[in-house]
Amino acid sequence: MTDTDLHTDGRFGLDRRITLPGPLRLDGGALLSPLDIAYETYGTLDADGGNAILICHALTGDQHVASNHPRTGKPGWWARMVGPGKPIDPARHFIVCANVLGSCMGSSGPASINPAIGQPWGMAFPVITIRDMVRAQAMLLDHLGVGALLAVVGGSMGGMQALSWPATFPERVKACVVIASTARHTAQNIAFHEVGRQAVMADPKWRNGDYYQDQDPPAAGLAVARMAAHITYLSEAGLTEKFGRKLQARETKTFGFDADFQIESYLRHQGIAFVDRFDANSYLYITRAMDYFDLAEEHGGHLANAFKASKARFCLVSFDTDWLYPTSESRAIVHALNAAGAPVSFVELSSPFGHDAFLLESPELNRVVDGFLRAGL
Amino acid sequence: MTDTDLHTDGRFGLDRRITLPGPLRLDGGALLSPLDIAYETYGTLDADGGNAILICHALTGDQHVASNHPRTGKPGWWARMVGPGKPIDPARHFIVCANVLGSCMGSSGPASINPAIGQPWGMAFPVITIRDMVRAQAMLLDHLGVGALLAVVGGSMGGMQALSWPATFPERVKACVVIASTARHTAQNIAFHEVGRQAVMADPKWRNGDYYQDQDPPAAGLAVARMAAHITYLSEAGLTEKFGRKLQARETKTFGFDADFQIESYLRHQGIAFVDRFDANSYLYITRAMDYFDLAEEHGGHLANAFKASKARFCLVSFDTDWLYPTSESRAIVHALNAAGAPVSFVELSSPFGHDAFLLESPELNRVVDGFLRAGL
Repeated sequence: MTDTDLHTDGRFGLDRRITLPGPLRLDGGALLSPLDIAYETYGTLDADGGNAILICHALTGDQHVASNHPRTGKPGWWARMVGPGKPIDPARHFIVCANVLGSCMGSSGPASINPAIGQPWGMAFPVITIRDMVRAQAMLLDHLGVGALLAVVGGSMGGMQALSWPATFPERVKACVVIASTARHTAQNIAFHEVGRQAVMADPKWRNGDYYQDQDPPAAGLAVARMAAHITYLSEAGLTEKFGRKLQARETKTFGFDADFQIESYLRHQGIAFVDRFDANSYLYITRAMDYFDLAEEHGGHLANAFKASKARFCLVSFDTDWLYPTSESRAIVHALNAAGAPVSFVELSSPFGHDAFLLESPELNRVVDGFLRAGL
Repeated sequence: MTDTDLHTDGRFGLDRRITLPGPLRLDGGALLSPLDIAYETYGTLDADGGNAILICHALTGDQHVASNHPRTGKPGWWARMVGPGKPIDPARHFIVCANVLGSCMGSSGPASINPAIGQPWGMAFPVITIRDMVRAQAMLLDHLGVGALLAVVGGSMGGMQALSWPATFPERVKACVVIASTARHTAQNIAFHEVGRQAVMADPKWRNGDYYQDQDPPAAGLAVARMAAHITYLSEAGLTEKFGRKLQARETKTFGFDADFQIESYLRHQGIAFVDRFDANSYLYITRAMDYFDLAEEHGGHLANAFKASKARFCLVSFDTDWLYPTSESRAIVHALNAAGAPVSFVELSSPFGHDAFLLESPELNRVVDGFLRAGL
C-alpha cells in the first residue's frame, strides 16, 4: 500500500493517490486488486473523527473540488461550495473528495495500467456500478481513519453516490445531501448516454478501446458525445437567453457549414475542450455505471427499502429548469424516504441554468446546504 | 423540360420527376438551373383548379405521403391523413407532395448530378433555405397548372414550409395548416442539429461530402446523428411508457457494452435503418435550412409582418408532450396571426408521443384537419 503526495506545493488541498490492496468485489462479479484511488483532502480530522464530509463528483468531475485543476489550471469545480467561509469549510470539516473508480484522474480505470499485463486495461477493465464507486470510497475512508461520515454530499452523479452511501453503509452516514440527482436513470437518460457511447465507438480511432499506445484517441467521437450531453445540462430557456439565434461576430449567415450561430461555436468548443481532459473509455464506463443505476432495483424494487436501515438525515435539492433530472425525480426519492421514516428536507430552487445550476453561483443552494449541515450539530 | 413517370404500375399515387429549366434564385444568392423535383400526385385537378392541396414533408420525409416507400416498402408516411375517406382525399382533392430541394429522393440535392461537371454536387451544392424549398414547390405547381392552393399542409419542417407559403406567395394560399411546428429554430433546436452535423463530419468516410463514387458513405456518423435527433422526437413520458428500464430478452445486465436496455437497441436500430434510406449530405443541408429558418427575421423582425399580405385562413395544432417544437412556439405564431388580423384556429392536442405524434394515429388530429378544410368550402 503506497500513499503518494502528488502535490505538496502549498496549495489549498492535498492531492494524493493511494494504492489499496483490495480486493474490491464488484457488482459485476470481478475482483479488483489492487486499486488506485486519487483524492484530495482539505482540513483536519477531529480527534473523535466526527467532522468528515465526503464529496462525490459528477460524470466528468474529479477530486479537485476546491483546488485548481492540474491540467486546465481552472478553479476547483465546487469552489463555490467548498472552502474557507463556505458551507463546507476546511476550518471546521475534514473534507475528502476522491476520483471515482473508472475515471481518468488517477483512480483505477480503463486508462490505468492493468498490473497483470503491464498495459492499460482498455475495455478489459471490468464494468463498474455506482455502488462499486461507493465501496471504493469506503476503502479510502478506512485508510484515512474515517468511520462515520458527518455528511456525504453530491450533485448529479455525485448525488447518486450520496444516495447509495446510506443504502450500502447505513451505519457510516449521519447526513446525506443529494442535489439535482435521481435514484435511477430513465429511458431518456439512457438514450442520451447511448448516443454518446455510439459516437465514441463509431470513431475508427477508438479501436475497441485500444488506443493508448499511439496517443491518438477517438477525440472526434468523444467531442460529439460531449456536445450531445452538454445540451442536456442546459435549459432551453437558458440557451435562448444566452445565445438565442445570435450569429457569430461576422453578423451574417455564411450559407455554409461553418459555425454561424454562437450556440454552434459554443458547443464545438465544449466538445474540443473536453477531449483534452477526459479519456474516451472512461466516458463509456462511467455513463454505463449511471445507466445501470437503479437504487430501487437493488432493494427488491422498492426504493424505500434502500433506506430502511439508515439513520441519516437527508437533504434533497432540485432545480426547476433541470430537465435531465427534473424535480419529479427528487420528489420520488423524498416519498421513498418518507415511507422509510427518514428525516428529509426538500427544496426546489429556481434557476435559469438547468441541470448545470448545481455547479454555478447560487446563494440559495449554499444557504440550504449550510443550514442543513449546521442543523445536525 | 422532362416529366417522367417513375412508377405507372397502377399504385395509388403517381410518382413523377420533373426537370425544370429554372433558374431558381436561392436565398444564398446562387442560381439553380436546371432543377429536378420528384413528386407524387393523388386525385384530379378540378376544371377551376380550386381543389389543390400541397403537402409539405418533414426533415427526413419524402413525396410518398400516401404510397408505399419505393426503398423500404413501408406505407406512406401520412397515409393516416391522406387517402380515400381521409381528411385529405383524392376523391375530392388534387393532392401534391414534392420531395424538398436538398433532399435525396429525386429532387435536386447534394447527391444529385451537378450538370456542369457530370458528377454529384456534394458540398458544392448551394446551401438552401425553407423559402427556397417553397419557391421550388411553386415552380412545380406552375408546371402542374395549379394557381392558388385550397390548402398547404405540413407538420414539423413541413409546417415551416406551410407557414412560409402565405408569407412568400400570399395570393396563392387560401388555407394553411401548421402542425407541431415553429416559426423559427431556437438555440436548443440548432444545438441538436449541430451535434448531428458534427457527428456526420467527424466520420472519416464523410470526406468533405465527396463519398458518392465509392458507395461507402459516412453511415456510422449519420446513424449517430439520427439517434440524437430521434430522442427529440419522443417524449420522456412516452419513452418511459414504451421502454422504461426494460432489459433485452436475456433479462440480465451483461456488465458490458452491448445493448442491455431495450431503449439502446431501439435507438441503434433507428440509426442503422436511417442510413439505408437517407443521404448524409442531404441531412447536413436540410438541417441547415431548418436552423436558418426564422420567419420573423425575413420580415423585419416582426412575425406578424410575414402575414400582412395573406388572405389565408390558418389552423395551428401542437401536442402537449412535444418538447422539440412545444406549444409555446405555436402560440407565438397564433399571436402574430392575430396581430396581422388573420383568421386562425388553434388547438393543443394531448398525446404521450411527443413530436412524433403528428405522424401517428390521432383521430383528434384528423377531425381538426378535416373540419378546418371543410369549413372553407
